[in-house]
Parts: sequence; structure tokens; C-alpha cells
Amino acid sequence: MAKLESQGEFLIAPDPDRAGLTRALRGTDQTGAEVEIAVVEERPLTIFLNSQEIVTAMTIGDYPEYLALGFLKNQGMLGPEDVVTGVDYDDDLEVVVVRTAVETSHEEKLKKKTRTSGCAVGTVFGDMMEGLQDVRLPATELRASWLYALASQINRTPSLYLTAGAIHGTVLCQQDRPLVYMEDVGRHNAVDKIAGWMLQEQVTAEDKILYTTGRLTSEMVIKTSMMGIPVLASRSGFTAWGVEIAREVGLTLIGRMRGQRFVCLAGEERLIRDIDPATVPEEAGKHRRKSARKAE
Amino acid sequence: MAKLESQGEFLIAPDPDRAGLTRALRGTDQTGAEVEIAVVEERPLTIFLNSQEIVTAMTIGDYPEYLALGFLKNQGMLGPEDVVTGVDYDDDLEVVVVRTAVETSHEEKLKKKTRTSGCAVGTVFGDMMEGLQDVRLPATELRASWLYALASQINRTPSLYLTAGAIHGTVLCQQDRPLVYMEDVGRHNAVDKIAGWMLQEQVTAEDKILYTTGRLTSEMVIKTSMMGIPVLASRSGFTAWGVEIAREVGLTLIGRMRGQRFVCLAGEERLIRDIDPATVPEEAGKHRRKSARKAE
Repeated sequence: MAKLESQGEFLIAPDPDRAGLTRALRGTDQTGAEVEIAVVEERPLTIFLNSQEIVTAMTIGDYPEYLALGFLKNQGMLGPEDVVTGVDYDDDLEVVVVRTAVETSHEEKLKKKTRTSGCAVGTVFGDMMEGLQDVRLPATELRASWLYALASQINRTPSLYLTAGAIHGTVLCQQDRPLVYMEDVGRHNAVDKIAGWMLQEQVTAEDKILYTTGRLTSEMVIKTSMMGIPVLASRSGFTAWGVEIAREVGLTLIGRMRGQRFVCLAGEERLIRDIDPATVPEEAGKHRRKSARKAE
Repeated sequence: MAKLESQGEFLIAPDPDRAGLTRALRGTDQTGAEVEIAVVEERPLTIFLNSQEIVTAMTIGDYPEYLALGFLKNQGMLGPEDVVTGVDYDDDLEVVVVRTAVETSHEEKLKKKTRTSGCAVGTVFGDMMEGLQDVRLPATELRASWLYALASQINRTPSLYLTAGAIHGTVLCQQDRPLVYMEDVGRHNAVDKIAGWMLQEQVTAEDKILYTTGRLTSEMVIKTSMMGIPVLASRSGFTAWGVEIAREVGLTLIGRMRGQRFVCLAGEERLIRDIDPATVPEEAGKHRRKSARKAE
């Protein structure tokens, strides 16, 4: 059986002390005493694909270029045939423009659809499901010992969550090594930033694992699948549709990871149980993100 | 000093046993043993305002009519001058249509804007901020004893969260009494369903408190303010922009409510400290939703 071991360093880790990501705010506690607490920032960022405005996302504001690239990629608006010629971020305008060599097919599609249906949200969603129909993920093996090693390292890494709370984290991992750890206040921005980094760095997806603190909703499952990553693991729980999509596309889906425990609802046949869970230490209180409720 | 007391019953409480809200899914646990767990459903619901498609929301699927009404109200697309003549839900098509006596001004605006800017998301967001400029909430008093009484009752109420996890809850309260408890997998659907119920039932807002399990982001603060509710309280943390908006519109903002503890970052002057926090029991493990981390 494998042992838990930590190796290597993050390529990108959270930088909780970076200026502009948190703000010290004064208030009072339950006793009426004045307190000053660190609170995460939240800023609007409007993403353009060439001259077409696509969406306004709420983000902590780090890595706007990765966020824009990853969002467009995950929505199926940037395909393998599209050549990105530039990503320009304007801090003052809170705008990021992704430029491609030729107008993408999606841009034209979006213009047409919004004229008839009125809103791109439905369109975007429909296109995501459409893009998923051809997706079959590789049957990459997953070792249980990697899951425990990853959770242990990620929980101990200094982060905005530990500093200020009210934020989600997503980590791109390879075997038992966490590589890129992104956090964001916006629902799926953390995963989009990872997608942007992967696109920029031309990173392979088939040998990666995505770890998230958030729930395994359909949107998280779709994004992970669109990124070509064959394993998605989370501390949180599942939704039925998320599980259904994971089973269809061949995504290994692990949820409710807390201490020794986890549940696998898709991809059991690719999971190698190489470690006795009883030998894994339970989470120390200070590393817990959520309580280990009996009901779960 | 006031004592904790529970009075009255919910007008609407979660119904975790209702068919169609959860599904039993089979998987394996960390030991490889087969397990069957309850997982929340997640379905798309497309909301129309008359003939105009507005958005596709992901929802557990209870109360689609309240969700549609509340979403449109909170986005400023339904104003006090708009007369709702019908709300039609089609289960098969997963569509809900809100009909008004005359075409609303927002519909026309949306058609125009989407032609020029391409996507209604930015538009919707801009309109929410626009709608907020005239909002000044009434200086309603809040007693600390109510907060403790509400948290205690809400945490003990049977819910989808306790059955299946991976879901958010929002509760409309009056003084120390929780009235309407909505849950949803979608980010802000729970609060939109409450807004829809309030609109339908013509409920006053100025004497209410909104309790949520989710983070106090700008969007939650904006929605609460648009609903005219002067107090927003949460187990979770804050974002800086959420606090900023709360201070501008006069919303009393309470976060990090766990056991005896809470933090007030806006509206301190309206908070009446009528109870000694030391007399409040700490949360029992089984009622906790998230751990009481020292860092928080």
C-alpha cells in the first residue's frame, strides 16, 4: 500500500498577502467590541471576444487574462481552430479583450441568437450542452492515496480562504501533486482561471485531476469535461444531474472528501484503492473547511 | 435581557421528503463498500417575460412560479406599475412564462440592449446597480436575541440540506420567527423564490429579516436591498463590495453567525444588544453547517 507523501511545489499558489485581494474592514463582534477583519474583494470584469461583449463576471481580480481565456474556452466560444492573437486587460475600465486572428464562429452565432432569443445566457448554456455531446474522457486511473495526499497538502496551504473566508478554491493536480491553486469569489471563476492557464501554457489534460471546494453541480462537471480533465474531486456534495453527466462522459467523480471519508459516484472502475483509509489521519479542526456532519 | 424562545410555525418550510427533489444514487465509499446516498436534483428552468426569453436558471424545481416572479422582480424587470396577469409553468418544457397586462419597459430595453451589446448578462447587472441608486432602507431595529433564536430554530428544521447537502437555504423572518424557508441548488434562487412569494402575497418588507446560509456577496446584498428588507444575516462571510453597498443603502449586515459569535459590518447603530452572548449555547455538532474555524 502507498504512503502519504508530499512532493514538489505549486506552480501557482494563492498569495493571500497580495495587495488588492482583501480589505481590512471595521465592525463589531457579538459582545459589541470593535473588530477589524480581512474581507475578500469582489470586482466586476467584463469579458469581450474581439468586439463582442460576452459577460460581466464578479471576481477577486487576480489573473483577469486567465479568467477571460478560460471562460471563453469552457463556454465553447474558443475552439482549437481559433488563434488567440492577444489578451488585453484594462485595469481602469475593468475590461479584458480576447482577440483572435479571425472572427470566431461563436461570435457570429451569438449575434444571431441574441437577436432572436433576447439573452445569451440561455444560448451559452445550450452551447455548453451541445459541445459536450462528443466528449468522451480518457479512462485515466486514479489512486485513492493521491486523493488523500492532495487534500492534506491543499488544506495546509496558506490561502485567501484561511485569511478571509467567503471564497472558493480549485486546484489543478497531477497524481499526488497540486500544481495550480486558484481562488475566487465568483461561482466558477476559479476553474475558468485554471482553464485559461492550461490554454496559455498548452498543458495536457488527460493526466490531471481537478480538486474543488465547491459543490459538484452540472456546471462544474461540464466545465471539467470541456477541459478534458478525467477526474473531479470535491469536499462538497453532488447534484443528480452532475452525476448523470459525469457518468455519460466518463468523468471520475469523487465527493464528500473529508479526512478518511469520500464517496465515488462515477468511475469506480478507474479507482485504484491502494491505501487503507483507516491509516489516513482525520482532519485537524483548524484545517477543516466544513464540518464532518454525520448526515453526510 | 431577553431569553431565547421559539414561537409559531413556518408558513413554508422545506419538504425534504417531497418526490422529485432528491434522487437516491448508488456509489462506493472510501472502503469500497456500496452506498446509496440522497442527492439533490438540478433542472434547467427557462424564464420568459411575456414573449421575451430572459434567462435559464438551474433549480431544484420546487416553486418555479415564485422563482420566476422573484427573479424578474429582483432584476428590476417587474416594477410596482406592472400588473402580473398570469404565471404559467410548463413542467415538460421546463419553461415558466410571466405575463403582464402591458409589455414592460424592461422588455423593450432588453431587446434594444441585446442588439447592441450582445448579451443580457452585463445589461441585467447594470440595471440592478441602476435600480439600487434610489434605495434607502428603513432604519428598522434588530435585536441580537432574535438572531440567536432564528439560527437555533433554522438549524433544527428538517431540510434538504440535512438530507442531501449541496444546497443553500434562505429564510424570511420577522423578529424571532422564521416564516418562509426556501432551499435551492442555484446560487440565488432561494432568495428569488422568497421574493416571488412576497410579491404574490403582498407581504411588507420593512419589518423582515433575511437569513441565508450563503456568502454575503454584492449580489446577495443587492437582491435583499431590492426586496426592501433592512436586515441580512448569514452563517458565512462577507465580500468588500457587499459591505460597501450595504453601508450605502442602510442595510444591517450580520455575518459569520455561529453559536455565540457573529460580526456586524453595517448597521451597528440599529443593533440592540439585548442578550448576553455568553448565555447562548454553542452549536451542537449535528446542527452545524460549517465548522467554527479559529481563523474566522
